[in-house]
Amino acid sequence: MRHFVEELDQLSNMLLEMCSFVESAVQRSISAVTEKDLYAAEEVLSNEARINQIEIEIDDFAISLLALHQPMAADLRLIVAALKINTDLERMGDLAESIAHRAKSLMEAPMIKPMVDIPHIAGLVQSMVRKSLDAFVQRDAELARSVLASDTAVDNLRSASYHELISFMEHEPASIRQAVDLIAVVRNLERIADHSTNIAEDVLFMVKGIDVRHHAEGRYGLDEGHESD
Amino acid sequence: MRHFVEELDQLSNMLLEMCSFVESAVQRSISAVTEKDLYAAEEVLSNEARINQIEIEIDDFAISLLALHQPMAADLRLIVAALKINTDLERMGDLAESIAHRAKSLMEAPMIKPMVDIPHIAGLVQSMVRKSLDAFVQRDAELARSVLASDTAVDNLRSASYHELISFMEHEPASIRQAVDLIAVVRNLERIADHSTNIAEDVLFMVKGIDVRHHAEGRYGLDEGHESD
Repeated sequence: MRHFVEELDQLSNMLLEMCSFVESAVQRSISAVTEKDLYAAEEVLSNEARINQIEIEIDDFAISLLALHQPMAADLRLIVAALKINTDLERMGDLAESIAHRAKSLMEAPMIKPMVDIPHIAGLVQSMVRKSLDAFVQRDAELARSVLASDTAVDNLRSASYHELISFMEHEPASIRQAVDLIAVVRNLERIADHSTNIAEDVLFMVKGIDVRHHAEGRYGLDEGHESD
Repeated sequence: MRHFVEELDQLSNMLLEMCSFVESAVQRSISAVTEKDLYAAEEVLSNEARINQIEIEIDDFAISLLALHQPMAADLRLIVAALKINTDLERMGDLAESIAHRAKSLMEAPMIKPMVDIPHIAGLVQSMVRKSLDAFVQRDAELARSVLASDTAVDNLRSASYHELISFMEHEPASIRQAVDLIAVVRNLERIADHSTNIAEDVLFMVKGIDVRHHAEGRYGLDEGHESD
């Protein structure tokens, strides 16, 4: 039997492979929308099965580590965090798949004006995804905290784009189907951001052993910022 | 130190308490929409903090059981399933909260015709929620399988209502805001059904030690039915 430390490294490496698949799926699904890139959309849809497969492999491996070794303290937190991050990554993959479906539907019509919001929101969300994954790789609590601080900005952008798209529909009923697709894209991006937040919280739990979910720590130790809605 | 068996019972009881809070939140959020019941909506919103708190308590307790005992086989599967089901329940609570917000927004305008779909979809989703929780309580693999079989029906209803609401908006631009809210309610109901499916899968893993996610078992051992998108 290999040494436990090597197995923990293997678990981290499997999760990193999952991260890179999911990050790529998110990035490609956004290109599919903003650049009407059909190839990118198809690529996301065809990679989903692989992401689902890796999710199962990681869960099985993590559970076998719990069963075979009796991990304590930091090792136990790493394995529990891996199980949770794995679930979040798989859901992010699902959301990228939903965005790819919307992208294909959007390709059937000329691009409408409110589109300009999407690259802005997408840029912020992609930055949250990247930082949360880097925070996991580097066990970097400060980086994880910076992800938590971005969540409100995404919520505000989502809310603004929602109202913009509603009033657009009211004035251009011919674009209703497209606008509904765009609302769904923005909502999916916001949910990807939420999962990045979950991952950042799991990193803080893993690194520091503290639980910051649902503001258990109180504003994540940050002073600035106000809650929206 | 109390006996491990008692602690596992306590974990199950905590999860049951969580179940009953979440099931009630889902049920009340649906009443808020279908009966324009403002009191129900406010109740869902005010109970969310309690659900978040129980989620943290369950996670902490499950992790302490992993740390203090060295659970094997069925006990380990129970604890891992509890961690996963806990996450799904908390997300279902979040979705009930989203539905309650939409319900409040919908109360501001007269009810529009496509409303008739919601009670039908809601009834099916509530039945999935109840069955998945009962399957957990009773460790009932057959009941869990019946939840998996309902998922496609919910997807089809969601898809039909989506197209109905889009064409409604095209003909009644004045109702766009309401129709978008209703699309969101249906989408949230479908996601609650997805989480019920996750719980049913976790119950099968816990009871049988088999992994049925992503059709790993092949159509859940069912012969009939076709995948929709």
